[in-house]
Amino acid sequence: MVVISGPSGVGKSSFVSGLLSAGLNLEYSVSATTRSRRPQEENGREYLFLSRAEFQKRIDAGEFVEWAEVHGELYGTLRSETERRLRAGRNVLLDIDVQGGRAVRNAYPEGVFIFVLPPSFASLEERLRGRGTDSDERIRLRLDNALREIKLVTEYDYAVVNDDLDAALARVAAIIVAESCRTRRRESPDSI
Amino acid sequence: MVVISGPSGVGKSSFVSGLLSAGLNLEYSVSATTRSRRPQEENGREYLFLSRAEFQKRIDAGEFVEWAEVHGELYGTLRSETERRLRAGRNVLLDIDVQGGRAVRNAYPEGVFIFVLPPSFASLEERLRGRGTDSDERIRLRLDNALREIKLVTEYDYAVVNDDLDAALARVAAIIVAESCRTRRRESPDSI
Repeated sequence: MVVISGPSGVGKSSFVSGLLSAGLNLEYSVSATTRSRRPQEENGREYLFLSRAEFQKRIDAGEFVEWAEVHGELYGTLRSETERRLRAGRNVLLDIDVQGGRAVRNAYPEGVFIFVLPPSFASLEERLRGRGTDSDERIRLRLDNALREIKLVTEYDYAVVNDDLDAALARVAAIIVAESCRTRRRESPDSI
Repeated sequence: MVVISGPSGVGKSSFVSGLLSAGLNLEYSVSATTRSRRPQEENGREYLFLSRAEFQKRIDAGEFVEWAEVHGELYGTLRSETERRLRAGRNVLLDIDVQGGRAVRNAYPEGVFIFVLPPSFASLEERLRGRGTDSDERIRLRLDNALREIKLVTEYDYAVVNDDLDAALARVAAIIVAESCRTRRRESPDSI
């Protein structure tokens, strides 16, 4: 289980696509959300888009590993999505916020938790404005949240600065290879 | 501080040469020993070759980070050798046995501890015999020690199987990159 978090505008979606095509046996676990679909998005690819009623029904049924309200919308990870992939022997990639990361740490304490940092706070604002999808007020809200999240980086095992996408992806790939060599992951510690 | 341990015959010397030329800002910290110099070895390159009297004098003066008697000879790491390199901003590579690794862990708890494993126990014996430098009795002694050391692999952070030298070196390189991304190594945890 590989968990990637980072503030809005840090470039996580390019990050996630890059990682999935890096030959790391990673499979993206699609989150569910109540937020509205953006034009280029597809249901089941970026997110499972659920109505608020449907989302709430699944919360009540205990179907989420984690869920949270962020920027006024519900986001969550369905246990069925992660377990299906883990059972198939894949590494599961989750792209979630810091609140969600905490809940996943409880459910999967052996996971690898990576926080993606912007090279600077100014670069973050620039990216959010350049994206052109958010109002000024929404951007200010996202920046406030980003600052709060970045202070929680020490809750993560690793921090990767997204200064250059390829270099940053290579660092994440190195982290995943390194974690596969950790002695605490060896099934039979005293066998060769 | 990067510590590499592994049983005799696992191919650590090719490993060490490979790592030093991998652009990882690594510098080898030469150990001191009382064992006799092999024909192809140079004083100050593979080891600092000391007489037993000189080695003992430096033990008494507290000049060693660690020292131990292995296979009847003294081996040790002089604090002057490691500190000089760390002060120059280099990553220091130590190639030592498990006993030494424990002492280094005490002196440098933030170090990265990597254990090199043979692909199988049979391959270890084959390498030791193929080297042609040890008597049958010495080989048996080394194999007994190897088995004892391998059981202690869980004291290390990482285990890397030396099945293929290039692949194994790539895994160690990944470990060193990953460790540089660890949040606990960040100087100012809440800054970007």
